[in-house]
Amino acid sequence: MRIHHLTLLALLMSTTTLAGTPEPGVNSGRLTAHLQALAEYGKNPQGGVSRIAYSDADRAGREYVLGLMRNAGLTTSTDAAGNLVGTRTGTEPGLKPIVIGSHIDSVPEGGNYDGDVGSLAAIEIAQTLNERKIQLHHTLQVIVFVDEEGAMLGSIAMGHGVDAARLNSVSQSGKTVRDGVKFLGGDPDRIDPVRRNPHSIEAYLELHIEQGGVLEREHLPIGIVEGIVGILDCEVTIEGFANHAGTTPMNQRRDAMLAAARFTDALNRIITAKPGAQVGTVGWIRAQPGAYNVVPGKVVLGLEIRDLDAAKIEDLYAQIRKESEAIAKQTGTTFLLEAHAPSEPALTDSHLQLIIAKSAERLGLAAKLMPSGAGHDAQEMAALGPIGMIFIPSIGGISHSPKEFSRPSDIENGANVLFETLRNVDAPRRQQ
Amino acid sequence: MRIHHLTLLALLMSTTTLAGTPEPGVNSGRLTAHLQALAEYGKNPQGGVSRIAYSDADRAGREYVLGLMRNAGLTTSTDAAGNLVGTRTGTEPGLKPIVIGSHIDSVPEGGNYDGDVGSLAAIEIAQTLNERKIQLHHTLQVIVFVDEEGAMLGSIAMGHGVDAARLNSVSQSGKTVRDGVKFLGGDPDRIDPVRRNPHSIEAYLELHIEQGGVLEREHLPIGIVEGIVGILDCEVTIEGFANHAGTTPMNQRRDAMLAAARFTDALNRIITAKPGAQVGTVGWIRAQPGAYNVVPGKVVLGLEIRDLDAAKIEDLYAQIRKESEAIAKQTGTTFLLEAHAPSEPALTDSHLQLIIAKSAERLGLAAKLMPSGAGHDAQEMAALGPIGMIFIPSIGGISHSPKEFSRPSDIENGANVLFETLRNVDAPRRQQ
Repeated sequence: MRIHHLTLLALLMSTTTLAGTPEPGVNSGRLTAHLQALAEYGKNPQGGVSRIAYSDADRAGREYVLGLMRNAGLTTSTDAAGNLVGTRTGTEPGLKPIVIGSHIDSVPEGGNYDGDVGSLAAIEIAQTLNERKIQLHHTLQVIVFVDEEGAMLGSIAMGHGVDAARLNSVSQSGKTVRDGVKFLGGDPDRIDPVRRNPHSIEAYLELHIEQGGVLEREHLPIGIVEGIVGILDCEVTIEGFANHAGTTPMNQRRDAMLAAARFTDALNRIITAKPGAQVGTVGWIRAQPGAYNVVPGKVVLGLEIRDLDAAKIEDLYAQIRKESEAIAKQTGTTFLLEAHAPSEPALTDSHLQLIIAKSAERLGLAAKLMPSGAGHDAQEMAALGPIGMIFIPSIGGISHSPKEFSRPSDIENGANVLFETLRNVDAPRRQQ
Repeated sequence: MRIHHLTLLALLMSTTTLAGTPEPGVNSGRLTAHLQALAEYGKNPQGGVSRIAYSDADRAGREYVLGLMRNAGLTTSTDAAGNLVGTRTGTEPGLKPIVIGSHIDSVPEGGNYDGDVGSLAAIEIAQTLNERKIQLHHTLQVIVFVDEEGAMLGSIAMGHGVDAARLNSVSQSGKTVRDGVKFLGGDPDRIDPVRRNPHSIEAYLELHIEQGGVLEREHLPIGIVEGIVGILDCEVTIEGFANHAGTTPMNQRRDAMLAAARFTDALNRIITAKPGAQVGTVGWIRAQPGAYNVVPGKVVLGLEIRDLDAAKIEDLYAQIRKESEAIAKQTGTTFLLEAHAPSEPALTDSHLQLIIAKSAERLGLAAKLMPSGAGHDAQEMAALGPIGMIFIPSIGGISHSPKEFSRPSDIENGANVLFETLRNVDAPRRQQ
């Protein structure tokens, strides 16, 4: 797959030229200032933010961003899923819209770049278009999606539709997704019409930090995403029996913590047993009742598996399920594995890859094709039309952490590649 | 050690008789009613109680118990550690006091018998003495100790003294122990004088549920405790690096959760590698930041090791420390093990064992010598004079659980053995 794309890209690179001349770039200082201002919402004492979807900080941050959208001359609305939508009408009403955007919610103790860069760069581009009175043929929509980090709710609502299970799930904020959407001004009972038809957009373009260390290691300012990995999330409930940690002999215990430990170690063993870029993680855990002197009777933990190949994810999941049965027997516990609906791997559009590559080249920026190990709203938007994604370096490959950082110059480069790509997608095509 | 005690007991049993005739028993119906009433304080919807030391429920439960003490004719006070002390003056002021008691705080999601039985049986005995106008030679003190399940604060304050680290530690209630003591009406700044002198008590006697399944399995109503295991508690902090669970390759992770899993499994392996009654537990765990899509950068967990032999505890702890260094290397993490001051194993007094045995025999109740796998306030009171402990069966061996249960008839038996033992300890000795 990857070779195929590289080959195609090289072929097209050699035969394609972009329309017009490159526009001067966006206002990088303003973009940096907006990122700094947004970083105040949910700021942690130790740095970074905890702007968890549906939290007070999320709501306040969204209000700030909505103001930026209005200042950028966009006509704004909040859809029933809670997505912020800013529209700039094009000159040719018959054309499908071009959508650009990202999200502003964070993981707990997250950073200031994941989602924020793509969201505020999209708004910055709208403001630049407005200031320079540049008319696009296509209607431009800037979307700041709701709850990317948890349920990926906003883009799923738009791309595939949201089911009741997702609405009823409890988010990291403590609220159900349903209550969270209401809290943000959406209407969960009218969420179905948020879903758009296939082939209803000209393109979806998203700028994002890489969240890995490849671009920095190779001294490349731009990554062209070839595909987004599929993700399987699974809540694992282990039931043993809570008993006194002093009076219960080792051979009479049904210790849910011991079972959880063996499960976590087994996952690591299964994931790393074969070559490949697959990853598997236990990211959270809760043990009950939770005291020095009580054998834990119940442990709940979160399992995640990712790969570009859906069949491989299924195979790894089957292996860890089987292993859990063996651990249950060893420890006198029971395992319940509840997998969420997996997100499918999503490949980006080869023509958009090409336009991004040419745009970067025109701006004098070296670029490479690469996979995305992280999920993105783009994968859901792929149901509606071609998607393209632009990566910029994450220093140290660090993400989902207060230490997450991307240089202002890299952000500027990314925003300008997005801007140039947008203008070229908008331009009448000379070759398809 | 155990054979020695059994031999001594058999020898003494054959040559010793108790003074006087047995007194009619306590008011069992009233004792049961008081236990039921106390169970309302901190009651959980799913049964049992969460009457965590220093919580609102603890404070309210203590108020209820203080009322029972006053109704029993005891002169009550709250000492600077927060212990409830009820005094009934004896006829011979020169004699040392006899102390009976236990605690009423519980673990999170605990039961209604651990501590409660011994506390309310002690008060019931005082009330019975009062109603029957029985004068004891010794002053009787009924003590309901503060915070047995967490810091064992009240009895440590009395037996060995409390240091600043223990006062500053954060209890399960969320309060520091210091603030918790204040909350309960104690005075942490004046806690030192709560400590009593060695040889200052005639005896400390405690009735308690077994919290294991031995008595029920062997159809025995009474256990005579030969010793209380030592306990080492240790907070283990594992530092890795929080990073994105999708973009961080497996071989570049510093996964604190994986390290915690291997540590927990290694502890189980070390504890069970050799024969013996030693136990080791990981009872609680917290992972940060705690989300599906973030490799945990920090995990903190609670380790506990128990045995009757202090040297064996030290050896097991040294083994797991060494193992943690190996796991740190494998996983790119660091381990910090912070052990609390260990509680030493405490043996009960052989003469008191004998009096308990004879008291049970006189009441027609079969009994056996046995160790206590659980820690008790008695172990701290051992610093002040001879201690004796009486066990009654725990159905199913279940404790520290809402399913904890002891039959009313067993509670009555235990209270009556305590009552008979108290009277015989109080009586002028015919042989020492």
